[in-house]
Parts: sequence; C-alpha cells; structure tokens
Amino acid sequence: MKASHHFQIIPEPTIRRLADYLHLLLHLQQEGIDKVSSTTIANDLNTDPTQVRKDIQYTSIVGKPKTGFDVPGLIGAIEECLSWNDTNAAFLVGVGSLGKAILGYEGFQKYGLQFIDAFDVDPDIIGKKMYGIEVHHLDEMPGLVNKLKRKIGVLTVPAESAQEVTDKMVEAGIRAIWNFAPLQLKTPEDVIVENIQFSQSLAVLTRKLSLLEFRTS
Amino acid sequence: MKASHHFQIIPEPTIRRLADYLHLLLHLQQEGIDKVSSTTIANDLNTDPTQVRKDIQYTSIVGKPKTGFDVPGLIGAIEECLSWNDTNAAFLVGVGSLGKAILGYEGFQKYGLQFIDAFDVDPDIIGKKMYGIEVHHLDEMPGLVNKLKRKIGVLTVPAESAQEVTDKMVEAGIRAIWNFAPLQLKTPEDVIVENIQFSQSLAVLTRKLSLLEFRTS
Repeated sequence: MKASHHFQIIPEPTIRRLADYLHLLLHLQQEGIDKVSSTTIANDLNTDPTQVRKDIQYTSIVGKPKTGFDVPGLIGAIEECLSWNDTNAAFLVGVGSLGKAILGYEGFQKYGLQFIDAFDVDPDIIGKKMYGIEVHHLDEMPGLVNKLKRKIGVLTVPAESAQEVTDKMVEAGIRAIWNFAPLQLKTPEDVIVENIQFSQSLAVLTRKLSLLEFRTS
Repeated sequence: MKASHHFQIIPEPTIRRLADYLHLLLHLQQEGIDKVSSTTIANDLNTDPTQVRKDIQYTSIVGKPKTGFDVPGLIGAIEECLSWNDTNAAFLVGVGSLGKAILGYEGFQKYGLQFIDAFDVDPDIIGKKMYGIEVHHLDEMPGLVNKLKRKIGVLTVPAESAQEVTDKMVEAGIRAIWNFAPLQLKTPEDVIVENIQFSQSLAVLTRKLSLLEFRTS
C-alpha cells in the first residue's frame, strides 16, 4: 500500500512547480550531480528558495543542512507525487497535423506518458502507423481502451467535433482528457480535463505585441 | 492609420475567447455559412451567449437582430483585434524533438504565424532544412532577426539553456517570446513572454487522475 501522504491535496501551483523541478533534476542527474540545494534549484528556475523548500515538503523527501537534497531520491519522490513513475497509457484521438506532431514528440515519454493507440475517422490513415502507433477507427475505441487500467485520452480533433468525440471517449471509459482542441469540453464530474490552448496563448502574445508596437511607434 | 479602438485594453480572458470564436467562424465559413448568432457560437463552444456578445463588442462588428453576425466580417474584425491579419514573422530557437514538431505543425499558419528561420547549436542540423525552414547557428540570429519588423521568438530549448538563449533573443531584438521551456524567463519589461507548459499541465492531469483512482478504488 502506498503511503497516505501521496493522497493529500497538493495545491495546483505546487504541482506545476514540482514538474519544473523534476525537469531540472533529471538534467542534473545526467550531468552526474547527486546533491542539490533549494537555492540552486531556485536560481536555475528563476524562482524563490523558500518556495522550493515549501513545495518539496509535499513530497516525502527531507533535505540535509549544507549538502541539500539527494538528486535521485528527490526525482523518485516527485515522480511518485505526479504519478510519473507508473506508465500512463495514453490514447490520441485526431491524427491530423497537431496529432501527428504530438505522436512524434519524444518528450512526453519522460513524463511516463506512453501512447498505445491512436484514433481517427479518415479512411486514408486508418490501419497505418504513425511513429510506431497504429491508427484505428474511432468506433474501435471502446474495445481497445477497456483493456487498460490507467487511461488518458489526448484530444487533438478540430473544435467542431471535439464535444462529440469527448462523449465517445467518456463512454469508452477514459477518465482524464488532455484537451488540445480550442473549446471548453462538457464532461461528467468524475472526468478530469486539462487544457492546452495554443491559439488562445498566441492570441495573447500577438495582441500584447501590437499594443507594445503602437505605444513605441 | 488604424482606428484607435484597436488599441484599447481588451481583457485577457476576452482575447482568449476571441481566439476560440475565430476557430469556429473559420469552420463555419468553410461550410458555406455566412450568418451566425451569438447563441449558435455559445452553444458550439459550450459557453454563454451574453458572454459572446460582450466579447464581440470589443471588435468593430455589430450584430443585427434576427440574422446575427456576418461571418466574414466578424472573422476579419477578430483577426484584426488579435493582429492575425498581418503575418507575424517567427523564429524558432531549439530544433529538438519539440521544435521539429512545432515546425511541422501546419495549424499555426492559420494564426498568421510564419516561421522564417530556425536556430540551434547542433552542427549536425545547422544548414539543413526542417519542413522548409533553414536551421542556422544561434550566433547568426542577430543579423537574421534584424531584417524583419514584427518578430516573435518561439523558444523550444531545454530548460537548462533557456535563460541564456532568451538573453540572446532579447539582444537580437525579439520583443515577444512564446516560451515552451519549463521555467520562468527573466526578461526586460518591454519584452512579452507567454508560456505553454506541457509538463506542468500533464502533471496536474496525472496527479488528479491518481487522486480520483484512489478515491474510487
């Protein structure tokens, strides 16, 4: 049985920062560094050492005065906190330009995300493999998803079909959706949705840039 | 000269939603639909019609009772608001797995983002083309960036080198950075930074999923 502290509520900003610390720690480990202080972590990530110490208190790891934290130990503790030590089986739905880019991006494997199958409705790509992942017809989703325990659905279909596809994902038993489609999904309360919104983010950037150019022109 | 209402302050949540409306409108246009009501927009995006009308008031477009908004007109007005009617020249820095995926993703062109050059320090890829975009050595950035007016830098280097590369981008004259690296960048006040944080977002998703599984097991 896992220790109960793993199931305490960790504030969302802390979870986000723990992910950043993990990135840095994996890099330090690659460089052969096995001890790190909260000050070093804070400096490298442009944040505050007190914040780093507070965040790390949510893991089971305790730092030692002077030497700091044990790098492999802290990596393991953060990975456990984020459930990145288990493999998270992921299904990608929507193998268009964005879906292909995501299947081809190796970085997600570091976070324990492992694509098992991909789904689409385009007969031209069904049955083909994209970066080693087979593309199935959307109708096959329930049978293929049901076989696995931890199931994350990565949604990369156009906005127009996103809600309809979401309903099918929920029906198939997916309980966590990583949504890359530009709309708010309606889901039952026990389904987790986390959004990545490229166009919204770019809109903020380009709007601010034109205001800046207007003020300085 | 452009109308001054384009340079009023638009709240960031409105900017984000305008980007979503634009997606939907472009789809409606493709389908040959030339009039749309705020209720239709709201229903399709799972949001509220009053909110849609309030947001659209920030553009120069006025809807007509019964028939609603003119689709091409509203597309043009939102694109102007977001500065997506002009081409935004973009430079990508860091041609690793993520950088390649972004260069290969066609979706950003819809938002007026046009990649001009890419930069890296890896001799194996310098001089090569990725999806038609030439990869240059990072040291060539100042000369190549200076030639263009509107400059967005897309940052896809590892966290460890992100701050150093950011300093070089700022020095080269980039005033807007779309940051995909997992850390907070330090920049001068007149540089805009907008973050896309995959690992933070996935961390929230996987953490919530394990809590959900714990509660329901």
